[in-house]
Formats: sequence, C-alpha cells, structure tokens
Amino acid sequence: MDKETIKSSKKAGLPPGTLIHVGKKKSEHSKITIYHYNEKTFSELEFNEAEKIKTPNDNSLVTWLNLDGIHKIELIEAIGKQYNLHALSLEDVLNTNHRPKAEFYQKYVLFTLKMLGIHRSGNKLVLEQVSFILGQDYLISFQEQEGDVFDGVRDRIKLSKGKIREKKADYLLYALIDSVIDNYYIIIEHFSDTIEKLEEQVLENPDENTLTEIQHIKRQFITLRRSVYPLREAISSLLKDDSDLIEEDNQKYLRDLYDHTIHIIESIESQRDVISGLKDLYISELSNRMNNTMKVLTIIATIFIPLTFIAGIYGMNFEFMPELKWKWSYPIVWIIMVIISIGMLIYFKRRKWL
Amino acid sequence: MDKETIKSSKKAGLPPGTLIHVGKKKSEHSKITIYHYNEKTFSELEFNEAEKIKTPNDNSLVTWLNLDGIHKIELIEAIGKQYNLHALSLEDVLNTNHRPKAEFYQKYVLFTLKMLGIHRSGNKLVLEQVSFILGQDYLISFQEQEGDVFDGVRDRIKLSKGKIREKKADYLLYALIDSVIDNYYIIIEHFSDTIEKLEEQVLENPDENTLTEIQHIKRQFITLRRSVYPLREAISSLLKDDSDLIEEDNQKYLRDLYDHTIHIIESIESQRDVISGLKDLYISELSNRMNNTMKVLTIIATIFIPLTFIAGIYGMNFEFMPELKWKWSYPIVWIIMVIISIGMLIYFKRRKWL
Amino acid sequence: MDKETIKSSKKAGLPPGTLIHVGKKKSEHSKITIYHYNEKTFSELEFNEAEKIKTPNDNSLVTWLNLDGIHKIELIEAIGKQYNLHALSLEDVLNTNHRPKAEFYQKYVLFTLKMLGIHRSGNKLVLEQVSFILGQDYLISFQEQEGDVFDGVRDRIKLSKGKIREKKADYLLYALIDSVIDNYYIIIEHFSDTIEKLEEQVLENPDENTLTEIQHIKRQFITLRRSVYPLREAISSLLKDDSDLIEEDNQKYLRDLYDHTIHIIESIESQRDVISGLKDLYISELSNRMNNTMKVLTIIATIFIPLTFIAGIYGMNFEFMPELKWKWSYPIVWIIMVIISIGMLIYFKRRKWL
Amino acid sequence: MDKETIKSSKKAGLPPGTLIHVGKKKSEHSKITIYHYNEKTFSELEFNEAEKIKTPNDNSLVTWLNLDGIHKIELIEAIGKQYNLHALSLEDVLNTNHRPKAEFYQKYVLFTLKMLGIHRSGNKLVLEQVSFILGQDYLISFQEQEGDVFDGVRDRIKLSKGKIREKKADYLLYALIDSVIDNYYIIIEHFSDTIEKLEEQVLENPDENTLTEIQHIKRQFITLRRSVYPLREAISSLLKDDSDLIEEDNQKYLRDLYDHTIHIIESIESQRDVISGLKDLYISELSNRMNNTMKVLTIIATIFIPLTFIAGIYGMNFEFMPELKWKWSYPIVWIIMVIISIGMLIYFKRRKWL
Amino acid sequence: MDKETIKSSKKAGLPPGTLIHVGKKKSEHSKITIYHYNEKTFSELEFNEAEKIKTPNDNSLVTWLNLDGIHKIELIEAIGKQYNLHALSLEDVLNTNHRPKAEFYQKYVLFTLKMLGIHRSGNKLVLEQVSFILGQDYLISFQEQEGDVFDGVRDRIKLSKGKIREKKADYLLYALIDSVIDNYYIIIEHFSDTIEKLEEQVLENPDENTLTEIQHIKRQFITLRRSVYPLREAISSLLKDDSDLIEEDNQKYLRDLYDHTIHIIESIESQRDVISGLKDLYISELSNRMNNTMKVLTIIATIFIPLTFIAGIYGMNFEFMPELKWKWSYPIVWIIMVIISIGMLIYFKRRKWL
Repeated sequence: MDKETIKSSKKAGLPPGTLIHVGKKKSEHSKITIYHYNEKTFSELEFNEAEKIKTPNDNSLVTWLNLDGIHKIELIEAIGKQYNLHALSLEDVLNTNHRPKAEFYQKYVLFTLKMLGIHRSGNKLVLEQVSFILGQDYLISFQEQEGDVFDGVRDRIKLSKGKIREKKADYLLYALIDSVIDNYYIIIEHFSDTIEKLEEQVLENPDENTLTEIQHIKRQFITLRRSVYPLREAISSLLKDDSDLIEEDNQKYLRDLYDHTIHIIESIESQRDVISGLKDLYISELSNRMNNTMKVLTIIATIFIPLTFIAGIYGMNFEFMPELKWKWSYPIVWIIMVIISIGMLIYFKRRKWL
Repeated sequence: MDKETIKSSKKAGLPPGTLIHVGKKKSEHSKITIYHYNEKTFSELEFNEAEKIKTPNDNSLVTWLNLDGIHKIELIEAIGKQYNLHALSLEDVLNTNHRPKAEFYQKYVLFTLKMLGIHRSGNKLVLEQVSFILGQDYLISFQEQEGDVFDGVRDRIKLSKGKIREKKADYLLYALIDSVIDNYYIIIEHFSDTIEKLEEQVLENPDENTLTEIQHIKRQFITLRRSVYPLREAISSLLKDDSDLIEEDNQKYLRDLYDHTIHIIESIESQRDVISGLKDLYISELSNRMNNTMKVLTIIATIFIPLTFIAGIYGMNFEFMPELKWKWSYPIVWIIMVIISIGMLIYFKRRKWL
Repeated sequence: MDKETIKSSKKAGLPPGTLIHVGKKKSEHSKITIYHYNEKTFSELEFNEAEKIKTPNDNSLVTWLNLDGIHKIELIEAIGKQYNLHALSLEDVLNTNHRPKAEFYQKYVLFTLKMLGIHRSGNKLVLEQVSFILGQDYLISFQEQEGDVFDGVRDRIKLSKGKIREKKADYLLYALIDSVIDNYYIIIEHFSDTIEKLEEQVLENPDENTLTEIQHIKRQFITLRRSVYPLREAISSLLKDDSDLIEEDNQKYLRDLYDHTIHIIESIESQRDVISGLKDLYISELSNRMNNTMKVLTIIATIFIPLTFIAGIYGMNFEFMPELKWKWSYPIVWIIMVIISIGMLIYFKRRKWL
Repeated sequence: MDKETIKSSKKAGLPPGTLIHVGKKKSEHSKITIYHYNEKTFSELEFNEAEKIKTPNDNSLVTWLNLDGIHKIELIEAIGKQYNLHALSLEDVLNTNHRPKAEFYQKYVLFTLKMLGIHRSGNKLVLEQVSFILGQDYLISFQEQEGDVFDGVRDRIKLSKGKIREKKADYLLYALIDSVIDNYYIIIEHFSDTIEKLEEQVLENPDENTLTEIQHIKRQFITLRRSVYPLREAISSLLKDDSDLIEEDNQKYLRDLYDHTIHIIESIESQRDVISGLKDLYISELSNRMNNTMKVLTIIATIFIPLTFIAGIYGMNFEFMPELKWKWSYPIVWIIMVIISIGMLIYFKRRKWL
Repeated sequence: MDKETIKSSKKAGLPPGTLIHVGKKKSEHSKITIYHYNEKTFSELEFNEAEKIKTPNDNSLVTWLNLDGIHKIELIEAIGKQYNLHALSLEDVLNTNHRPKAEFYQKYVLFTLKMLGIHRSGNKLVLEQVSFILGQDYLISFQEQEGDVFDGVRDRIKLSKGKIREKKADYLLYALIDSVIDNYYIIIEHFSDTIEKLEEQVLENPDENTLTEIQHIKRQFITLRRSVYPLREAISSLLKDDSDLIEEDNQKYLRDLYDHTIHIIESIESQRDVISGLKDLYISELSNRMNNTMKVLTIIATIFIPLTFIAGIYGMNFEFMPELKWKWSYPIVWIIMVIISIGMLIYFKRRKWL
C-alpha cells in the first residue's frame, strides 16, 4: 500500500497527459501480439518494436492486440497513434495504481482491472494492472508482464472452441475479464486456507507472531477488497452504457460477470468477518493462558504458604515453647499439614481449578 | 465457505455456457417428476432418462416439472432443449454457488434460492440450491437432491386443497418459495436454541471450547445471512417486474413473501447482536474468574506473609535476643499473630473480597 | 425473540390464507365493541358471538369496530365477510409476529403496530400486536387482549372532547395510533430508569450478575427497536398514499406521528449508546478492581519478602557467623528492617499506590 | 435524556392540539417584545399580558414578535389567534422536546432548533428550544427564557448595521438562526477543552472517576449530536422550499448556514472519535499500570525467593551438615547470594524490566 | 481541531458578509501576482498594494491573479470590487475553516480546498486553505502564504510546456487543483512511513508513549479525511455543472481529478484500518508482556516455594525429630529437592512455558 502511493507521487507536478510508467517494471521485455479472426479465418502476428506494427483494415475481422510489458512507452504511443486514443487514456494505462474503472470515450471504452497473484513467499498478494480498450471491431489489452491467464481464451480462439469466433470484440472482452475474475476464486481459496491454518495455530500454540500474521492477512484482504470493490461499479457502468460497443445480446454475459463480482465481494466480506473473529479468539486465548498461569501459581502458593508458616513457628528459638518438648509434636505437625493440604485441594476441586 | 469457493474455481478458464455441475454431488439418483393440473384434472409422470421426457402441449393445464439431482447434465440439457432455455440459465442452475437472484429472460424468469438444512452433527448449516424457471404455463424446479419440503405443496395439488389448483404457474412458484421460506424459521429457531445453551454455558462453566463454539455459530449466521439477504432483492425484482408472467392479482402473495423475508433478516440480525453480546459476556466472565483467582492468592499471601516474617524473626540465632528468654514470649507472639490475621480479614471484608 | 420465531414455524407448510392464530393466547374472552358516531349522535354495541354482529349502513356515521382477543377465529371470519376483507389481510391480523406495516388494499388500508408493555417482573418487554383496518367510513381495530390504552380515545368520543366527533375514521385511526405511541414514551422512561440504576450498580458494586443484566436490557432494546423502527416506514407510506382514505387535511396529524416516531427512535438509539458505554464501564471497573487486588498483594509481598530473607539469614546455623555473637546485632537488624519498610512505603507513595 | 422523555409522557392520552407546556419552566416571567422596522423607521413595544398585544397592519414594515418564556399559554394562544396559526404548530412550539425541523404550513413556516448552553456546573449541556414562525412580513420567535444570544441582531436592527434593515423577515430569520449556530462553536470549544484536560488526566493520573467523566462527556456529545444533526435537514428543506416566503436572493445565506451546520456536525464527529480514542487510551493505561505493578512484584519476588531458600537450607537442624562447621561457609553463602541477585538483575535488564 | 473551532467563534455575532480573516496569520507579506497569457504572449505583473492593481481587458488572454497572504483585507476587497464578487464569497475566501466546496455564483465559481503540509516537527499535519474563483476568462487563486506547489504550473505557463497555453482558465484551474492533489500523495506516504515505524516500535519495544503516538497519528488521519472527503463532492459538482465556465472538452480532466481523489480517500481509509489494527496489536503486545512477566514469577515461585517449605520443616526445633539425627538426612533432602525441581521444570516444559 505504502509502496503503491510512493509511486504515484512520481508524477506530482508533471503536466497531465505526460506518458510516464508509474509502477514497478515487472518484465524486461515488451511484446505485441496481434490476432485477427472471424468465424472462418485466424492469424497471429508478433512485434517487438513500435515501427513495425501493422494492423489490417478488414472490418469483418476482429482484431485483438495484446501488449505484454507496458513500460516501453514508445510502443504505447505507437498504438495510441494508430487507434487514435486520447492522451489521458494512455496515461491511465501506464499508471498501474488506478482503481478498476470503465471510462467511456467517444469511439472506445477503457476498462481497467487488477489481475491478482500470490507472491512467491506464499502469503502476499501481487497486483498486476490489466487495461482493455474496446473499439468497434478491435480490442487492445495491456498487461504489465507476460502471463498465462489469457492462455485459455487464446486456445479457444485458435481452436475455435465455444462461441468466441462467432462473436465480436465485445464478447472477447467479456471472455478475458471472465478469465481474470475466475482467477480471483483461486486467490481467495488460497487465503482461506491460510486463515484456517492460522485458526489452528491460535487454538493450539499462539505466540507473538500469530497476531502479526493475522494483521498481515487482514492487510491482504484490505488490498483484495480495494482491487475488487470498484470492479462491481465498473462492470455495472458497462452494463448501463448505451453506446453500441456492446451488443444487446451480450449483456447477459456482462450480467454474469457482475454476479461473479458480487459473489467474490461477499466471500471477501465473510473472510474479513472470520479474520476479525480470529483476532478476538487470539486475545481470549491469551487471557485463558494467563488465567491458567495464575491458577498454577495460586494453587502452589496457597498450599505451601500456610505450611511454611507452621514450620516457621516451630523454628522459633523461644526457651519456653512447651510443644518443642512433647514427644508426638513432630508427627502431629505433619498430620496437621497434610490435613490443610487436602482441604485446600478439595477447595480448588470445587472451584474447578483442578 | 472455503469449500464453497474451491468448487467455483473448477470452472476457471472454461468458455461460458459450458454445462458443468459445480457443487458436491449430494444424491446418487436423478429423477424428473411432471405434474399436469388444472381445476379439474391432475396427472403425475415420472422419468429417469432424458430421452423419455414428454410434456403435453395443452396450455389450459399448468405443468410443473421437478428435477431431483442436478448432477445428471443430460437431463438438464434435455429440459433446456424442450423449453428453449438459454445456456447461461442452465449454467446458473448447475452452479450451486450462486446467490439467490431473479433473472429475467425473454420468455421466462429464473429464480434461485437456498434451501437450508441442519447437518446431522446438529450445529452446521447445510445449503441446497433450488432453482425455478417460470414460463407462461409451466414451472420447472431443480433440486440438488430429493427433499420433502415440497411435499406439502404436492399434497395441496393432489388433494386440491386451497386455491392452488385454480391458479396458474406463478401461484405455484409462490407456494414453493413460501414452503422454502417457512423452513427458514425452523432453522433460525434451531440456532436460537443453540445460542441459549451457549449462554448458559458461558455463565456457568466457560472453558476454552466455548469461544470456539461461539465463533462457529457466528459463522453459521454469516452463511445464513448470505443465503437470505439477496433473497429480499430477488423477490423485490419479481414484484417490480412488468412482464405478464406474474398476474397482477398474485402480487399480494409475493409481497407477503417479501415481508417474511424481511422478518427473517431481522431475526438473523438480532441473533447476530446476541452472539456478539455472548462474546463480550465470555470475555468478561474470564476476567471475573481471573479476578477471583487473584483474590484467593492475595488473601492467603497477605495473611501469611507477615506471620511468617514474625516466625522468622524469632528463628534468628542471635545470642542477645532478650525476648527469647522471657516466659510469655511464645503465647504473646501467637496473640499478635491472631490479631494481625483478624485485622486482615476485617480489611478484606470491608473491600468485599470475602 | 426465540419464542417469537417458534410460533411462526407453526404455519410452515400450510396453504396461504389459512386462518390460524399465531401467537400466545393472551386472553380467554373475545369481545366485539362497535361504536357509531358523528358530530351529533353516539351509540355503543357489544357482541360475543359471530352471528350476532350487526353494523348499520348509515354512511354519515363513523363506525369503529373494536375486537379484543383475536384467537377466536370465527369472529375474525365474520368481520372479514361483512367488510369484504382479503384472506391475506385477515391472516396478517392473526399472525402476531408481523412487523409494523401499512398495506394498501383496494378499498381499505391494513395498519399493524406493536403495543408495548412491561412484564410484571419489571424488566421485560411485552409485545402486543394491534391491527387496524381503515375503510371509507369505518375503522376496525384488533387487539390481542382487552387493554386500557384506547380508553382515553373512547372517552373523547363519548364526551365529544376535542375534534374527534367532527372528524372521520382516518382521524380516529390517527388518535388510536397516537395513544399507542404516547405509551412508548412511558416504556422508554421505565428502561432509562433501569439503566440508571444499573450504572450505579456498576460503579458501586459490580458482580457477576451485572453484565447479565446489562445484556438483558440490551436485548430489550433490540426488541424495542425492532418494534418501532418499521413504524416509521409504515407511517411514511400512509403519508405518501394518494388513495382518498386519508383526508388531505389530516396529513398534518400523520406527520406529527411521524415526528414522534423519529423522536422515539432517536431516544432508543441514544439509550443503546448508553448501554454499550455501560458495558465498557463494567469491564474497566473489573480491571480497576483487579489492579487494586494486585496492588495490595504487591505492597505486602514486596515489603515482607526482603525482611523475611534477612530473618532467614540469621536463622542459619553456621558455627562461624560473627554477627550472632555481637551484642547489638538484634536491635541493628530491627533498625535495618524498619528502614527497608519505610523506604518501600515511600517508593509506593511516589508511585501513587498508597 | 431520561429527564426529557419523562416530560413527553405528560401528554400521553390527551387529544392532539391540546396546548400544554412540555418541559421545565425555566423562567418566571413571560414577555413579548415587538419590533417594527423598515429601512427608515424602527419601533419597539413590550407587553406582559395577552389582551394588550397590538400589531400594526402596515405591510411595508417587518414585524418581529419575540416571546420570552413559553410557559404562559394564554400568550401563545393570543399570538396564535392574531396570526391565524394552526393548533398543531402552537403545540410544537410548546413541546420543548421536539427535534429541530422546518414545517411548512400554507401561509407560514415553523422552524425549531435548539439553543445550547453550558450548565453552571461547567460540564453539562443545557438545551433550550427556540421556535420561529416566518410569515410573509412577520417573524415570531419563541424562547423558553430571556437570553442574550439575539442581542447582536437586536443591535444591528436598532443601529441599522449591515443589510438587516433593508431586508425582509426571511433575512431576519437567517440572522437569528445564524446567531444561534455561531453559539454552537463556543459550546464545542468548551467541550474540546474539557476533552483535552481529560486526556492529560488519563495519561498522568487515571483514577476510577476518569472513565465516568469520559462517559459523561460522551453523553453530552450524544445530546449535542441529536440537537444539531436534524438541523441540517431542516435548513435543507428551507432551501428546497419553493414557497415565496424566502427570497431567491437570500438562498445564498441559507446555504451558508447549511455549510456551517455541516462543519459543526463534522467537528462533533471528530470529537466523538477523539473521545472513543480516549477510552481506549484509558483502558490501555490501566493495563500498563497493572503491568508495572506486576513487574515490581516479580522482580522483588524472583530475587528474594531463591535467596530465602538458601538461607532456609542452612537453617535446618540436621546433625550431619558438614558446611555448618566450615569456617568460610558464611561468607561463601553471601557471595553466592550476591551473584544470584546480580544475575537476576542482568536478566531483568535484558528483558527491559528495569 | 480545537484550535480551528476557536477561531470560528471569532465571528460569532457579526453580521454576515463582514470581512474578517479567520485563521492564523501565516505570513507577514501579501503579494498579488498577475499572469496574462495566451498561446502566443505571456506577461507577469506583481503588486503589493490594493490601489495599484491593474488588469487588462483583453478577453483573448487568460488572466491568472494569484494572492499570497489573505490576511490583508483591503487587497481582497479591491479584488472583490474589480471582479464584482459577492460579499459572501469573499467571506468564504477569508475564513480558513471552510470545508472544501464548489459554490456556483451567477458569473463565477468559488472552489476551495486544503493544501496539506507537514509541520517542521515531522508528525503534524498543517492545513492551508486555497480558494479559486473561476470566471469566464480569469482565475483568481488565494493562498494563505507563499508556497511552491504552484511553481510547476507557473513554469509550464512560462515555458509553454504541455497544452496549458492553448487552453482557457478552466484548464488552469484543473492544473492547479491537480498540483495540490498530487501533493496529497506525498503527505500520505509520509504518514505511511510513520505508521510503519510505529508498527516496528509496537512489536519491539512498546512503551507508554506508543499508544499516545498511535492516537496522534490517528488524529492526523481524522484531519486528513475531513480535508479530502468533501473534495470528492466538490469536484463532482464541478463535473455536473452545466454553466459554460468549464468546457465540455475539459470534463475529462476533471474526471481524472475525481478518480485521484477517490484513490486518495481509499488510501486514507486503508491507513485508518491499519492504524486501528496497530492499536489492537499494541494492546495484545501488552497482554503478551504481562503474560511473560507472570510466567517468570510463576516458574520461580512454583519451584522454590515447596523447597523452602522442606527447608522450613527441618529448621523446626522439636526435640524428637528422628531425621535430624540420621547421617544421610542432609544429602537425601538435597536429592529430594533436586527431583522436585526437575519435575517442575519438565511440567513447565510440557506447558510450553520454557
């Protein structure tokens, strides 16, 4: 979170529309892949440099231009020129700190969302921003680095699985967003498992790290929430849009995405409830343990303090202490001590301390 | 909750509209039962296989097709073909992780909600998804397994009790939803009883499991809430619908359902308040017990520590200790000790520790 | 709360519109009283049995039919037939678990709210459902048992006090609701007093029952809130109604009721704040007491432990301990001990433990 | 709060419109002062009795009728008759428990708000209800007792400062409300100071009264909030009103009031946050102190218990204990004890207990 | 916060529109700088006194008048006269306690927001109010003191960087607000760092100041929130405005500001969550430490109390104690003591106290 805002301040003071990549450079290479397809044909092209990009002008084909690695600004600029994109929308694509949103321009829609991943260390959320520009017969997608989330969709296009080749660019957008959202479920499952393990740890062996870990997972859910919440609104504004970029008929699919998003948000909220319950559990477990420590101390001290006192009495050196001379004093003192101890134990038993 | 999301990820990467059963397979058998009825006639048919399904085309009759066991995809597909249902709505029927919703298609409404049950172990909520497709003169209901919640409605149809035979499919939908919602009351009662027992346990004998159980019941209410909350909205959108699937005249009944749902939601919220109160009670009970432990320790230690000190004094071996030689020293020391003890006890009495 | 829902489940599975009394039977007798009045005339009739009910058809008179004891279903049915009431509205009258609401039927409005009382034991809320059916020139009121809250209104009608005889049935409805709401203030005062007493108890002598009592009063406020909150909405929908059941001119009075309801809701919210403050007070009071216990223990132990150690030193039996032989050893040890004690006491004084 | 509701119940059962003063009688005397003014002329009249009230009918003059002491009902009634006011609005003026509101009647607006003061004891909020009736060319103001908040406005009229003499009654209303709201800032400052003092007390010397005082100040803020919150809505409905009582041109001033109200509400919310932080601070301060008490006990006990044990060992009376006979035993024991003590102290130092 | 409200009360009782500077006088000097520019020309003028201000009347140029130091009221008045500004808007400019807002006057918009800074001491927020008045071809900006946040924009105008010279006054407003908002990111980063340091401190060495510091930072975020929250609404009302002060084409930029504001608000909310987590961490860390203190005490006491008791037994002076005479008694007692100690240690090991 802190890291994130630090990067945003890099832009402070610059004129708007200045193209600067805000975010960590996640990949060395930048690559543009262009797919052209319709029901019958399919072609795939790959470019590394801005000058070489060529896109056909055949409106009967859907063009999907995918850019991996957004830090190479000249590529972005070249795409911007070719498709006549507004400077502000290119800026949005480059600024990886944007919240998910749908922004309507005259001839296209800009849609950004977060792709979620788990850091190698296993318990940290990694965010990657994915932006889409949906035009009349083209879709441009921007990823921070090469990923494999879109592979399923690529295969469906290549192998003409499902309806994807029969449909236009809007359906492609849906399919890609859908594959990102499907991935969220995996992330939430991952953290659910972590929470379950933490719960066991709290109940069995809570130590000073446990709360730190609870805090950590809570923070991951704060980030998760911030990444997913605005998505609902973004999809909803796609739904409400009356431009003809999205076909009437495909609204069904968007509504499906919307339902998924709400389902994910609800899962996140439930997990947050569980986490805050965990914290209470942890604190009460601490109290419990303190209580047990106190009980042991109290039992031992309460039994031996009176006995030690009795021993102290007969350790006094007065000349005139008749008991010291009696023959049975010593065993009698022992008996008295045993009786006191047993009495105490019975008392503790009754209080359910034993 | 975790389990739930795990299943959702099974679909990640598949093209939309692919029919896959998402959820536990709760029943071995699948069965289709078809009822045809109007005010005068009534017939009942049963099928096990997709090819054999036959539905009459008599519009003057209401057709109720009930499917128990949604894991048999070919049955779902056969129904889909016969009634001309959209692939996405069949997918919704098969995905048992959906939140309750009403979705309007051109010729029918899809309505899904959760049937609630208690797990055999007695304190775990079991969810079953029930979906309805309401068309002009037919109602299709999908259950995950054979159940008996609809038996009351079946009897009313067979025996022509109440108005059900005089009414159309929309009234049947209402009657079925009503029987599901009526069942919610029983579930809430069950958990209310559990909460009451927990409360007694907290006050009488709280141990380390108590909080875990409070957490558990709290989670059940989170699930309960997630299952019932969206229902309000779903029914409300049925109410607002201006398609002619639901007769003007039957809106009254839907509003009645709506009122029930709100009543149930309020009960859930109240119980949640009670649960969070329970947690406070538990924590303060722990504090109380700790306090009592401390009091016992303090009383015993405070009384005996000074006495032991006095005994220690006269256990010293100095040659010149005049008191050691005096005749009445020993009884005087005893008297002093008794006075100190009584003074302490009075002090504790005043502080209300005794 | 639990009790309440249990009763609701009695209806599970029955066809809608089946008239069953849901709730405790609070009164043995059922009685119908009918008042006919206008500015000039007034008459009062009383019935015990369904067959005998007779209502005049003179539209220039206002008819107020009051039923005490709703468990006698045949009386309800007779009224329903006479006034041509929908089965669902009769069902609502009989189901005492309904939340307050206003429901508009074609020719009448059904208005239900809760009458509040205090249980004989002094600290439990008792709810009674009161339903009104307001038609063009009649008002029907249903009470669970004979009560005296309406007596004031009855007197005003009989003695023609205020404007009540000049006005129509809608004003009568207002007057009756007003008398119920006025009663709420008395209930809230009662519980405010209880809360004040509890606060004193927390500060002076908190014991294990105190928190249970705080929990109890909190629950009463949960019930109170559930009974009053929906009333706001109910009155508001009366206000917004554009049927001609309520005269333009009397809207002022309804708005007055609305203001009262909001005032009561705010009082309830304030009291809830106070209660949750009470709980904090209680918990911190426990901490305080624990702290005091610890201080006493610490002071006594800290003073005597070193002294006992010194005494122990000179209780050792070594042959070569020069101090034992010195003449002034014993008084010197005493002096050292006194100095240590005084030093400790000064230290504790500085730490403000004394 | 409790006091307040008690008074409301005084009206329970009376017919609406009955004029009864609900609230404490805060002043012995009632006084009516009437100001007539326009840009050029100004006159002031004073009355004590109802019969004598005379108001000129010159529409070119603004009439401000101010009543101090609303308990004298005949005065209210006289005003009501003269200005043709609805019984319900007079009732509202008399009932000092009303929440701030603006109520629109056909020919006038009723505006009520709370004037805030500090009780002589210095830490209790005192509420006084001020009501305004704004007609076409007159303003009537009702105060519970003579006050000096309006003095500034009076002077501005008399001395013709600012624009007040050029403007109509609506501007006068604004000026009076403004002077009441300005006063709120002083109240909030007062309580802010109290909170700051409490914070110091918590950090330096928290005792059992501190939390009670925190509770008390929190309650004052609950009352404060209840008095100011509805004001926002009241002013907002004045703003939205399209009657011609308020000139288009003066809306600017009302919007200014609205801004002030929001600013005050935000201040109240901030202070509430600070108060709830204070409570946490107090509780953690208690924990801290307990911790310190425990540390002292632990240090003393942990050092001396083993030493006392060693002394005990050599206090045993066995005949065959070789150490007792050795010459250097006694100094060696002392050295061992000193080493143990120093070891302990180093250990505590490392744990940062010293 | 307290300081702030104190200043507001300075105005209590004054007629509205009276120009008084409410706030600390942050700068000695007041300076007016006027920039005139269009695509081709650029000029800069500077004034210190009100009489000398001259503004050209060339509508083809954009005029930016910037005032540093708003305490010099005659300058404000002079500007007000020249640009024909309403007294209330000048009053708003002078009152530095206003919340951010956009207020629409007939010929201009008043926009105020807070510039944020960090106090020299490093952990206190400093607020400065910046107001803008946007007219058809001019922009007036008011700052409390000379600052350098606008320097970037000044340079862009002088050096004709970006589109600023091609655009009108509305774009200038956007650029200035943008530079203020960019600055917010730096502030939030600063506090994020402080929070991270606090977190380390809590985990490593929490002392009595830690919570005070947490409270302090929490207060800073309350102030931060109050300064930024209303900005969203203010920008939103600029967006919704249909006056022609803001060109259709520049709405994009405003929407960009809006997005930034929401992003900042979300960052603030996240940090607030983190802070409240910190508090929990601190409290549980305290509990942990107390627990550890208790464990040390319990271990030492539990081991030595029984041993001391045994030593006490054989320190008794009874004449008839056979053990005293036995030759191996002393070593046997030692062995017993060692066994007891080891048993205890094993027990503690099992309980995981060691």
